[in-house]
Amino acid sequence: MPMTVPAGYDRTRLAACARSIADAGRALAAQGWTPATSSNFSERIDAGHVAITISGRDKGRLGEDDVMVVDLDGKAVGTDARPSAETALHTQIYRRFAEAGAVLHTHSRTQTVASRLYAAAGVVRLQGWELQKAITGYTTHESVLELPVFPNTQHMPELTARVDAWLDAGRPLYAYLIEGHGIYTWGRDMAETRRHLEALEFLLACELDLRRLSA
Amino acid sequence: MPMTVPAGYDRTRLAACARSIADAGRALAAQGWTPATSSNFSERIDAGHVAITISGRDKGRLGEDDVMVVDLDGKAVGTDARPSAETALHTQIYRRFAEAGAVLHTHSRTQTVASRLYAAAGVVRLQGWELQKAITGYTTHESVLELPVFPNTQHMPELTARVDAWLDAGRPLYAYLIEGHGIYTWGRDMAETRRHLEALEFLLACELDLRRLSA
Amino acid sequence: MPMTVPAGYDRTRLAACARSIADAGRALAAQGWTPATSSNFSERIDAGHVAITISGRDKGRLGEDDVMVVDLDGKAVGTDARPSAETALHTQIYRRFAEAGAVLHTHSRTQTVASRLYAAAGVVRLQGWELQKAITGYTTHESVLELPVFPNTQHMPELTARVDAWLDAGRPLYAYLIEGHGIYTWGRDMAETRRHLEALEFLLACELDLRRLSA
Amino acid sequence: MPMTVPAGYDRTRLAACARSIADAGRALAAQGWTPATSSNFSERIDAGHVAITISGRDKGRLGEDDVMVVDLDGKAVGTDARPSAETALHTQIYRRFAEAGAVLHTHSRTQTVASRLYAAAGVVRLQGWELQKAITGYTTHESVLELPVFPNTQHMPELTARVDAWLDAGRPLYAYLIEGHGIYTWGRDMAETRRHLEALEFLLACELDLRRLSA
Repeated sequence: MPMTVPAGYDRTRLAACARSIADAGRALAAQGWTPATSSNFSERIDAGHVAITISGRDKGRLGEDDVMVVDLDGKAVGTDARPSAETALHTQIYRRFAEAGAVLHTHSRTQTVASRLYAAAGVVRLQGWELQKAITGYTTHESVLELPVFPNTQHMPELTARVDAWLDAGRPLYAYLIEGHGIYTWGRDMAETRRHLEALEFLLACELDLRRLSA
Repeated sequence: MPMTVPAGYDRTRLAACARSIADAGRALAAQGWTPATSSNFSERIDAGHVAITISGRDKGRLGEDDVMVVDLDGKAVGTDARPSAETALHTQIYRRFAEAGAVLHTHSRTQTVASRLYAAAGVVRLQGWELQKAITGYTTHESVLELPVFPNTQHMPELTARVDAWLDAGRPLYAYLIEGHGIYTWGRDMAETRRHLEALEFLLACELDLRRLSA
Repeated sequence: MPMTVPAGYDRTRLAACARSIADAGRALAAQGWTPATSSNFSERIDAGHVAITISGRDKGRLGEDDVMVVDLDGKAVGTDARPSAETALHTQIYRRFAEAGAVLHTHSRTQTVASRLYAAAGVVRLQGWELQKAITGYTTHESVLELPVFPNTQHMPELTARVDAWLDAGRPLYAYLIEGHGIYTWGRDMAETRRHLEALEFLLACELDLRRLSA
Repeated sequence: MPMTVPAGYDRTRLAACARSIADAGRALAAQGWTPATSSNFSERIDAGHVAITISGRDKGRLGEDDVMVVDLDGKAVGTDARPSAETALHTQIYRRFAEAGAVLHTHSRTQTVASRLYAAAGVVRLQGWELQKAITGYTTHESVLELPVFPNTQHMPELTARVDAWLDAGRPLYAYLIEGHGIYTWGRDMAETRRHLEALEFLLACELDLRRLSA
């Protein structure tokens, strides 16, 4: 059943994606959100191809050689490099959201700690924060933004099944946490995705502070 | 009833304001006080005009094109750009305080969390901190500095009414918090306003630390 | 009784002091320890003269014009500039410790919060930290380092009297906190003083963390 | 009994070690993990020689002159410089782990505070964190990573005896804390050692946050 996937993507577009991924990596690493070569980033090239970081590289010093192409099933295109196991979580987003243009997975201390604290509840509920309006689709601080927390596993199909189940239940999904692991978020392009990530990190940090101070 | 507002302001003065707003933005964004394109800044051009940031721009990379002119009623002057809804909070300050030369609204984690914690009390009372003396008019740590916390709303007239009510009651006002949202502060010029903001951020952070540690 | 104080100091030495004060200011401001133009720094020129920062300047951008000369009684030498009220706390150290070559007063959040938390006890007792060895005279983590906390006042003679009383009681003094205000520390030269300050900031921060986490 | 140790090492390799040690120092100092000239770093030159930082230098500004050579017993080679007392902790690692290529000892606030909090237990047990996989040999967040905490002492043989006892009991050892003091960690080369250190700092910080927030 495996079939040859043609290298049918625009190389200029790939180079642009690699640059915007490297720019994001530099900024996110500088904030300490990609410790010890963790995290991975991707950007959509076209309807069938995605540019994604190769596993294990220092996310603060990405170059063009640190980005590879996969199709929407996560298979490497035009390269012998082996995509990271977590590639499946990126391509799932591109398959399920036609408008998704970029996916960022980071691993900040706030994201990681929040993912442990809210694991039992299975969800972080954000409400009353003006910055919720930074998430596309939210126009007031009065709405509720639900961020699911999925159990961690080294077996990716379990995770993609949980994401599918959430979406199939008709619940809105802008981002999710994996327990002890980090966050996945996305947007229509890299700028929107970075804004979403920055807003979610801020909101999670505020939520933890409030919890600490309200005790 | 809308009338043509003449572009009767000094363009050299506008350019100077745009530069000092951009400088402030760079410094405040570097400290993480303007997450996800939040926050807005303004500086008085003359008795009837104010330079103010256009909504939605990255506050760490402001250029001249990211600043527009409004009159003291918040109406755009000499531009088709639509001023941000929060412009009304800036122009209110310029109308009520003849000596106000700049207004900064930021959105740090400390400001945001403090605004939630003290929302029920409606006020943060600062006392015993030497740095209160950085606020013009304060000469000793023994005085009390009251910072009101107003409920958040997407409807600006509610907020301006609360500010008016506070001032009409004859209470001193150097800055205010909006619940879950951030801080507004001002001063005679941009340098004094930045000093006020830096001091208030520091004092709020100390107050939260003290609360956390005194528990 | 005021008498003309001769400008009898070496101008080359003054310039060297101004440079090392400016270097220290840049480094300390970058760490956020001098918020809102607070803090002041000095270095000994010779047995009778001290170079000290003029009040109210931005400590991260000090130039030669931001440093003035005072004698050991705190009187301005060769300038019309008025020394800061806190100059008396610097000159007291130079008078009492013949070997003191530099004094740094900063205002970090940690120093300020610790000064409030330990005000009632009147002292912070540090023990069991390896970094105590960074304070000249300490050779083991097993010793106790006592940091007194004096009540804040806008009246300097009260503060100098408290410092005198502590020393006259024969107690060792390497640094002191003023309640709600910040720290004073010193050393034989600027390098040692900066090492002392860096170590004390670190130790106070550890002490607060331990208190928070042991609760 | 002291015998002349021949300078039998490759000077080009030493220069390369000195550069990689200086690079590490700059990066670690910038994060505040080497306060007040604390911390020390080493890299293996060959089977019998180690390049190690000379005591008391500013770890953020290391040059070639700040690195000396010792043999695996910690004796200076080809220099009159006196190695730091803590050199014994480095050479012990190179003796016991033939594959160890670099050792980093740092002194961050998180490491220092964790070492006090877990001193009574004698161990920090890490489990459920995805980033455990950054430690070579760990392939799943489900495993347990034990980090022993040894009592501090100014007498190095006591510490090396504790490390030996741990290893002789057949327990895995990737890093250890010394109470009130900091961390020691190592890896096959400097890149792996820095990744281990970055991961352990992150994991300890998460563990402290979780403890604080779960209270």
